[in-house]
Amino acid sequence: MKILILGAAGMIGRRLAQALSAHDLTLVDMIQPDQPGAICMARDLTADPAPLLAGRPEAIIHLAAVVSGEAEADFAKGYAINLDASRALLEAIRAIPGYRPKLLFASSIAVFGTPFPDQIPDDFHLTPRTSYGTQKAMTELLISDYTRRGFIDGLSLRLPTICIRPGAPNKAASGFFSNILREPLVGLPAVLPVEDSTRHWFASPASAVGFFTHALGLDLGQFGAARALNMPGLSATVAEEIEALRRVAGQKAVDLIEVKRDETIAAIVAGWPCDFTATRARAAGFVAETSFDQIIAAHLT
Amino acid sequence: MKILILGAAGMIGRRLAQALSAHDLTLVDMIQPDQPGAICMARDLTADPAPLLAGRPEAIIHLAAVVSGEAEADFAKGYAINLDASRALLEAIRAIPGYRPKLLFASSIAVFGTPFPDQIPDDFHLTPRTSYGTQKAMTELLISDYTRRGFIDGLSLRLPTICIRPGAPNKAASGFFSNILREPLVGLPAVLPVEDSTRHWFASPASAVGFFTHALGLDLGQFGAARALNMPGLSATVAEEIEALRRVAGQKAVDLIEVKRDETIAAIVAGWPCDFTATRARAAGFVAETSFDQIIAAHLT
Repeated sequence: MKILILGAAGMIGRRLAQALSAHDLTLVDMIQPDQPGAICMARDLTADPAPLLAGRPEAIIHLAAVVSGEAEADFAKGYAINLDASRALLEAIRAIPGYRPKLLFASSIAVFGTPFPDQIPDDFHLTPRTSYGTQKAMTELLISDYTRRGFIDGLSLRLPTICIRPGAPNKAASGFFSNILREPLVGLPAVLPVEDSTRHWFASPASAVGFFTHALGLDLGQFGAARALNMPGLSATVAEEIEALRRVAGQKAVDLIEVKRDETIAAIVAGWPCDFTATRARAAGFVAETSFDQIIAAHLT
Repeated sequence: MKILILGAAGMIGRRLAQALSAHDLTLVDMIQPDQPGAICMARDLTADPAPLLAGRPEAIIHLAAVVSGEAEADFAKGYAINLDASRALLEAIRAIPGYRPKLLFASSIAVFGTPFPDQIPDDFHLTPRTSYGTQKAMTELLISDYTRRGFIDGLSLRLPTICIRPGAPNKAASGFFSNILREPLVGLPAVLPVEDSTRHWFASPASAVGFFTHALGLDLGQFGAARALNMPGLSATVAEEIEALRRVAGQKAVDLIEVKRDETIAAIVAGWPCDFTATRARAAGFVAETSFDQIIAAHLT
């Protein structure tokens, strides 16, 4: 299958491109992706997307985005990349008569805002509380409408927080969820800025890759007009993370976690959703981890 | 108060401008509005909105839109007027340092799609099933985000179907709800294309005007981050419409209604919402009719 991946050099994009390497891949990102056997292009997302469609890819996986913090700090850039570039892609597709690719879009649980029920159902209302979440919600609406009109066969996948993120600790408010596992697992210290009773919604990078490869093989018609799906995940507390770490790496690893409360981060995290039913996605065969032991195992393999 | 009304020559805009004539009004529409004492401008909504803000209106009432049928027939035009022009207005406001007008936006119950509960709650999910509804939902999301960021003080008012619409019968799928009252009231025949058990959600033109004048006087901060409100209305069946007509104008008026089923219209109407709690709006003092006798009385005065 001819597949175009936008945002192919990111954390998920790189793994996804490897998982799909048997296909005819075109990989695009701001920084040049690098995968043998694939067409790799460095390209700004604001550039005209029409040339990317010249080969009429049967599937397009759209992962490219400005992250939440940057979309909040740079209002215009967030809308330009997270909304306008997605719409330009949809318009470039619509301009090609008879072309109707499968389009998988990486959306986010940031489309939802407080107050939340204990477990968020599939039909919870869209109440983004950030510009990033607003841009994702608007793009979801476009994808449903372009699908209904027959221009694409689309699906928006609302990803849980990805854990354990690889790489060095970053300053994202959600970074500590990964840091307190990844760093102690290699003997390095990490800071926990919130209560260990804090609950959140997780999936491993491998699960995220699995969501997209699974969706590629699905008949999306089964989702009818509602083309945005809450992906499955693991609802767990920080204490459960730490217990899993203790089982895998012992008390000496746990002792590397320094509790240092940060009121700013605690306040941000308090506004995040922490559990979903993900009924429709599970029924369609999407799967994620069911324990932090599995999430740690996914990181270590 | 300095008030700018966009779409001021439409059914609601004209009445609203009259109701607000004690204020310092600027009235804008594609066709030149006509009201003594007001600044009246004929202007395409796709034109640069910046000049309209030169006088820094304290309130902007945005009623201008391509209607549902046209947005469905002309995909590009619907997005250009119903989404892009609204966003251009928001961006023009954002470009003026320190300016934060009250912005009231005429949204629609078309942001909701089937399946519906018997009565739609305020937090029902956004599931538009038309391009028009998608464009309204996207603009609502923008208005909430621009409000949260402090660029405007916004509110989206989701209007019920307006009944009794003045003027000649039109071909809108919802037209018959008005036609079967307005025409027999003046001795003319009308066609009823659906079962009389069909239920829908109504408010008079006078109520719609009242929603906006009431919102003008409200502290919108009370609505927090959720800046889209289902307006109150009357949930009633066609049979209840006809009974009210009989009470007001007698059996001879009812006899002017010819039942002529139209499967296309019946199918469209079956997908429309027919009852809302409108709890938040009612609590904030928004009011609508509670019987079709009142809706007919509003038409006759």
